[in-house]
Amino acid sequence: MREKRKVGITDTILRDAHQSLIATRMKIEEMLPIAEKLDEVGFHSLEVWGGATFDSCIRYLNEDPWIRLRKLKEKIKKTPLQMLLRGQNLLGYRHYPDDVVELFVKKSIENGIDIIRIFDALNDIRNMQKSIEVAKKCGAHVQGTVVYTISPVHDNEYFVSLAKNLVEMGIDSLCIKDMAGLLAPYNAYDLITRLKQEIKVPVQLHSHYTSGMASMTYLKAVEAGVDVIDTAISPFAMGTSQPATETMVAVLKETPYDTGLDMELLSDIAEYFKKVRSGYKIDSVVTMVDTAVINYQIPGGMLSNLTSQLKEQNALNKLPEVLKEVPRVREDLGYPPLVTPTSQIVGTQAVINVITGERYKVVINEVKNYVRGLYGRPPAPIKPEIKQKIIGDEEIITCRPADLLEPELEKAFKAVAYYLEKEEDVLTYALFPQIAMKFFQERQAKKYHIDQNLANEDSKFKYYPV
Amino acid sequence: MREKRKVGITDTILRDAHQSLIATRMKIEEMLPIAEKLDEVGFHSLEVWGGATFDSCIRYLNEDPWIRLRKLKEKIKKTPLQMLLRGQNLLGYRHYPDDVVELFVKKSIENGIDIIRIFDALNDIRNMQKSIEVAKKCGAHVQGTVVYTISPVHDNEYFVSLAKNLVEMGIDSLCIKDMAGLLAPYNAYDLITRLKQEIKVPVQLHSHYTSGMASMTYLKAVEAGVDVIDTAISPFAMGTSQPATETMVAVLKETPYDTGLDMELLSDIAEYFKKVRSGYKIDSVVTMVDTAVINYQIPGGMLSNLTSQLKEQNALNKLPEVLKEVPRVREDLGYPPLVTPTSQIVGTQAVINVITGERYKVVINEVKNYVRGLYGRPPAPIKPEIKQKIIGDEEIITCRPADLLEPELEKAFKAVAYYLEKEEDVLTYALFPQIAMKFFQERQAKKYHIDQNLANEDSKFKYYPV
Ligand SMILES: [Co+2]
Ligand SMILES: [Co+2]
Repeated sequence: MREKRKVGITDTILRDAHQSLIATRMKIEEMLPIAEKLDEVGFHSLEVWGGATFDSCIRYLNEDPWIRLRKLKEKIKKTPLQMLLRGQNLLGYRHYPDDVVELFVKKSIENGIDIIRIFDALNDIRNMQKSIEVAKKCGAHVQGTVVYTISPVHDNEYFVSLAKNLVEMGIDSLCIKDMAGLLAPYNAYDLITRLKQEIKVPVQLHSHYTSGMASMTYLKAVEAGVDVIDTAISPFAMGTSQPATETMVAVLKETPYDTGLDMELLSDIAEYFKKVRSGYKIDSVVTMVDTAVINYQIPGGMLSNLTSQLKEQNALNKLPEVLKEVPRVREDLGYPPLVTPTSQIVGTQAVINVITGERYKVVINEVKNYVRGLYGRPPAPIKPEIKQKIIGDEEIITCRPADLLEPELEKAFKAVAYYLEKEEDVLTYALFPQIAMKFFQERQAKKYHIDQNLANEDSKFKYYPV
Repeated sequence: MREKRKVGITDTILRDAHQSLIATRMKIEEMLPIAEKLDEVGFHSLEVWGGATFDSCIRYLNEDPWIRLRKLKEKIKKTPLQMLLRGQNLLGYRHYPDDVVELFVKKSIENGIDIIRIFDALNDIRNMQKSIEVAKKCGAHVQGTVVYTISPVHDNEYFVSLAKNLVEMGIDSLCIKDMAGLLAPYNAYDLITRLKQEIKVPVQLHSHYTSGMASMTYLKAVEAGVDVIDTAISPFAMGTSQPATETMVAVLKETPYDTGLDMELLSDIAEYFKKVRSGYKIDSVVTMVDTAVINYQIPGGMLSNLTSQLKEQNALNKLPEVLKEVPRVREDLGYPPLVTPTSQIVGTQAVINVITGERYKVVINEVKNYVRGLYGRPPAPIKPEIKQKIIGDEEIITCRPADLLEPELEKAFKAVAYYLEKEEDVLTYALFPQIAMKFFQERQAKKYHIDQNLANEDSKFKYYPV
């Protein structure tokens, strides 16, 4: 074994773990009672925000994501708070113009985020440029991200060169993001070894347990010199989530890579989250090894999407065909990694190709825009005949996609002015106009209701709102 | 990486996997439809019999364990069939005399077993001697077993010397049995490295996923030169069962340790067992990492036993005390590994020590017999003051425990003669007299019922049984 080198742990319990296992439904009330104990552990960081949590807060939980962040920051004073940001997509599902990106990143940091992990589904660094720049200016720790996938163009050369580009953009650390659990242990060993030779910033590994390999992948990554690994407290670990924190801490204990974290403290925290977990129905199938990942490199969430799309069409028997069509569509489109939003785009087109019986006879709008270059530059060129079939002679854009977008903030301010309680609200609206509006209206209504009650004590209709 | 060295896979789906996850309830009807496909894979072996399956067959499934073995052998013609045998305990919970052991081992092999894995809870090789001798004489592959545990006396020296003794007894291969999932990856690496240096027979590793470490442990064991690992097809893998077969096969693919097994075949098999699994309720908690294992070295099954014993006494609040008492009792008794039957013995005494408020004020019979040496020689000497407190000046036996046992076969033959359909039935009775008798009586009744129906066609009461 090598020289002593403490491995850091980022616990994802307040973000990715529950996003993966209970559809991002953990509420702030379930987080706060344990927040101070989490802060005691000495994690490298706690991932607490971003990803789907923002959307879920306003869509399902009637919770203000900004207030959630502030409340967590109040209780977690020592441990850096980390978030996941989809580059120019922020926490939404399309590119936002630079003025929105700028304010969003600034406000995330102002409200408590210390480390921003920034990625782009296509690994197009132009889509990460703006958010990296702003986050740096605001003094946050910027973690540039390489999205891991498998394809003829995605070799270690590719990943290392991408990492170097990110380092040149000034990132403070690098994350290898293996959202589908595809990174095999010995491949991780090779990749991390290369990265540690070629770049100077710390390297962090983020994987999912979907294929059952993630803990082994972490172990080999640790041996290769990875600095930080992402894990989740055991009741929300494994399956489509991360390896268990306690397991990795125990495995590295008394090795040169000892994390130094206290097992008793972790056990107390696990006991707490066991109770939280018991309030949700986690099908034990979710924590099973998913062989579709191993055999077809299809991420966990994607398979269930394909299945339900086929069910709607009464064509579930076509699933084997669709599973074969997905990699073909992916190849046609230049091997995009399968992650939001590309997994949905590729998957839906594959289903349509199979159901119509003719490939690209019907093409969804998102695929057209993808081919036009509006999502960014694909890892490999799109096949010319496919491009021709889908958008004909139309020109492909070569600029940064967001360069084509008009500013939106001013309009958003106007649209939401009536409901504005804090500057951050305009961002909530800019990202998800419809659900934000509904959220604000309900907030308003609740407030009036209270005001009205107060008012009623005084005199009727005194403050009756217009 | 090292030279090319194919790793063998023993799949436990038909024995340990369902014993661990659904209390040994898988039925022969669920096994036969997939047996030929399992045979096609090219496993090193299939574990199909022994452990708790024998007991479960007659106690819960109304199935003749011998017939199960024969039916499996009929369908699985190429892959060696493997069983787990508790040495002089055979498949029961006490020592049986040599005449029973002799016939049992002989009949197991005659009915289809190719590889017998033989262990003793205390690692007392005298308790394995007879069965090893008979199995060898009958031409089976004998796998001697070292039960892994953690204690001040259980170091690599200890395990290696035990392994050497077993090799001297003529075993064909060695198994490291980590029933509690305690063997950590780097400890496995060291232990397997030592064993591969010191002994010449192949080494196989059997671990459970309870602590979440097992797949990492396998990976490091493979790197250290382990020859075969035990895994389970994914729908019955992980949790208290073994690592998933597909995961380990995928991880080793295209490495020097490639298993050579076909992923598509494994996927088909997994699909089949997904359906089988859906017929049982597996609480997703069963597949969670069990931190009690990591913190207290308490095997999965044992914790739930302690909990239910305390519940019965209305003293669940004493669990933390009991968790501390278990290692103390274990220390007093010379650090027995916690496996059937020692886990029950140590656990029950620990509960009693806590509940009565005075250690060893009340002592269960099993502990008395244990101290008398009737279970074999403990790994370390029992503390003299404890011995004194429990059995006073009574002498401790120094011979092989089974030397004190009278033959039982003749008596068993007489007791069961009326129901005997094949010689093996006497063994079923010798192992579990009461449930065997009930099983035989029901079998008889069912047969008469059929006979009577047949008889009725002819003339009434013609064959009416006495
Ligand atoms: Co993730
Ligand atoms: Co086992």
